[in-house]
Amino acid sequence: MKINDNYLKLKSSYLFSTIAKKVREYEAKNPDKQIIRLGIGDVTKPLAPEVIKAMHGAVDEMACEETFQGYPPEYGQKFLLDAINDFDFRRLGVEIDNDEIFVSDGAKSDTGNIGDIFSVDNVVALCDPIYPVYVDTNVMAGRSGDALDGGKFSKFVYLPCLEENNFLPSLPTQKVDLIYLCFPNNPTGMAITKDELQKWVDYANENDAVILYDAAYESFITQENVPHSIYECENAKTCAIEFRSFSKTAGFTGVRCGYTVVPKALERDGVSLNGLWSRRQATKFNGVSYITQKAAAAVYSQEGRKQVEDTIKFYLNNAKVIKEGLVEAGFTAYGGVNSPYVWLKTPEGMTSWEFFDFLLEEVQVVGTPGSGFGPAGEGYFRLTAFGSAENTKKAIERITKRFKK
Amino acid sequence: MKINDNYLKLKSSYLFSTIAKKVREYEAKNPDKQIIRLGIGDVTKPLAPEVIKAMHGAVDEMACEETFQGYPPEYGQKFLLDAINDFDFRRLGVEIDNDEIFVSDGAKSDTGNIGDIFSVDNVVALCDPIYPVYVDTNVMAGRSGDALDGGKFSKFVYLPCLEENNFLPSLPTQKVDLIYLCFPNNPTGMAITKDELQKWVDYANENDAVILYDAAYESFITQENVPHSIYECENAKTCAIEFRSFSKTAGFTGVRCGYTVVPKALERDGVSLNGLWSRRQATKFNGVSYITQKAAAAVYSQEGRKQVEDTIKFYLNNAKVIKEGLVEAGFTAYGGVNSPYVWLKTPEGMTSWEFFDFLLEEVQVVGTPGSGFGPAGEGYFRLTAFGSAENTKKAIERITKRFKK
Repeated sequence: MKINDNYLKLKSSYLFSTIAKKVREYEAKNPDKQIIRLGIGDVTKPLAPEVIKAMHGAVDEMACEETFQGYPPEYGQKFLLDAINDFDFRRLGVEIDNDEIFVSDGAKSDTGNIGDIFSVDNVVALCDPIYPVYVDTNVMAGRSGDALDGGKFSKFVYLPCLEENNFLPSLPTQKVDLIYLCFPNNPTGMAITKDELQKWVDYANENDAVILYDAAYESFITQENVPHSIYECENAKTCAIEFRSFSKTAGFTGVRCGYTVVPKALERDGVSLNGLWSRRQATKFNGVSYITQKAAAAVYSQEGRKQVEDTIKFYLNNAKVIKEGLVEAGFTAYGGVNSPYVWLKTPEGMTSWEFFDFLLEEVQVVGTPGSGFGPAGEGYFRLTAFGSAENTKKAIERITKRFKK
Repeated sequence: MKINDNYLKLKSSYLFSTIAKKVREYEAKNPDKQIIRLGIGDVTKPLAPEVIKAMHGAVDEMACEETFQGYPPEYGQKFLLDAINDFDFRRLGVEIDNDEIFVSDGAKSDTGNIGDIFSVDNVVALCDPIYPVYVDTNVMAGRSGDALDGGKFSKFVYLPCLEENNFLPSLPTQKVDLIYLCFPNNPTGMAITKDELQKWVDYANENDAVILYDAAYESFITQENVPHSIYECENAKTCAIEFRSFSKTAGFTGVRCGYTVVPKALERDGVSLNGLWSRRQATKFNGVSYITQKAAAAVYSQEGRKQVEDTIKFYLNNAKVIKEGLVEAGFTAYGGVNSPYVWLKTPEGMTSWEFFDFLLEEVQVVGTPGSGFGPAGEGYFRLTAFGSAENTKKAIERITKRFKK
């Protein structure tokens, strides 16, 4: 019996598990210290009242033989597909068929599992810094080549996102097959305009590449010229798969729901990628809890929409507090306008992990080291806007007090 | 961009999707006919009152900032791991650590995804007939070799389960690396004794193979000498991974929860398979809904246990009605004693699909063609005990009336 030894190329633990472990250890040694967590992108506000109402109603349906729901439809309940389609696409003027939408237990699963339908031989282009799931799942699948010094892999094509390009990757200069893009971006918090994204769509169509577009943070978009879906760009349906999540939109991190769009027009070698993903999901997944799908549909009701939008405004205000506070204290900080993430440069030449340890030990604030998102993240640090208003304010006061010039 | 062309070796749709389509088409043409579904293994009884109570409570917790739950622990909530461990293992005298248990959205996902941690080069042994997920996911992963005439694949080792061996596979005569076993079996409904299963454990330990043991139907076991867990066998922890499901135990087909046990003693090439699965789940999965985990934990409460056991007794009585009715009408039928499945020989030399069409068209009963579970299933047919008592009785009356000698 042989293991999949691609796994041995990975660091032994997932970034956020490592952070959680460090924090637990610090906590155990310093039980009196009050830690503020602005690290992992987890929400803190409760579910919207409309969502709660829908879930209670669905639980009651599961209690009666007449209304009980067994195996869910493999790709999502019609009431949810209709709601997604109306609000997330038709409203933008984007035509998507319901059978191009696949409801799942979350965008992390889908962005991880999507690799199943692609050959191991594809060349993968990754932004740097990047959400670690795209990297690690391609290492596991055997697309990485060898681990190099400095945290890179030999076969991946890296697209640096740095201050000098305003954190927008440049088009690849060599042939790539699969391109992961995430906008508004995790971790930098930066958005892409429709015109800029159109360049990527055109590139992919011209070069027979497929874009894997993670739009998990689209509901944080506040600016007009920023697309909520890649399908707002022309001809994106022949080159792009889009991932969406209810985690950040509606506080579903603990509920688990997302969806993936695979257009039927997306074909390669005469094979429909929609058909491949249908087959993958029907074989290796069994649909989403009825109660969860009722909850997700409630997000699209008039009242539900208003409630989740209020929460997003609340988090965006936290982002503003973080960014303005840091800038005032002399930090250089990005993001936070179309995103719950603020991406700051570490002070005094500290590395990302040095700054992590410093913040944890000196002011008991947990953030995420930029280098955890890739080599180009070194010297940066991510803070998230998902805390309470009070804790967010307190955390920024603690940091800026320590650094104010 | 190249697709994973292993997918092209698969039949275009998953067995149960094909059946559902056939039934929909028949229904559309015959809107006046009342169809009874004893095909897919989906439950019909509502969730237990204790489970409903727990879910309402958990939904209420999600409504308040103080009790709101965000990202779940990656491998399961402690309260659920404790309950699983106490009832499913310690009670049997089996010592499993909580960090050997991985809670998931269901056994279908886990039995499908487990292949991620194994090399593509392993030789896979499969019972025939078999739950199609084991076959299809190994085809997708590239372990199958070529599709042969008759529905087999060149690199798989098939272990026929037929009348002559009482539907228990014989030990392989050639070297195999991964062995899928499911007991009580889907589709045959037959169980394995502890002594017989010990032979497989010994074989795997001696031959460096890993057993992937699907125990999704263990709660239907009624006989004394039948193991509920493979870890009741000696030394199973060095060779076996076990899959469990709440779908059939507690009617969770529409709720989605299961778990997988990967013992820390299970190592190959000096690498812990527990570590590999931990990494896979932390990277490509994001835990199970808090509400679902509270529901699953309620299954283990004293009152919850009693409630789900009553439902299982109800289904087992349906199985008895099916089997005894068929035998009385001259059919040869197996299973149904430690299982919700009855496995019958098709009458009058009909193929499995001929019998499927016959039952649908003549008596409007939906079952599952044995050949859908593999070549050795040809000439057999599966009926499930998950219907209502009334429909089950009616279906068997319809069938036996048509066939009574």
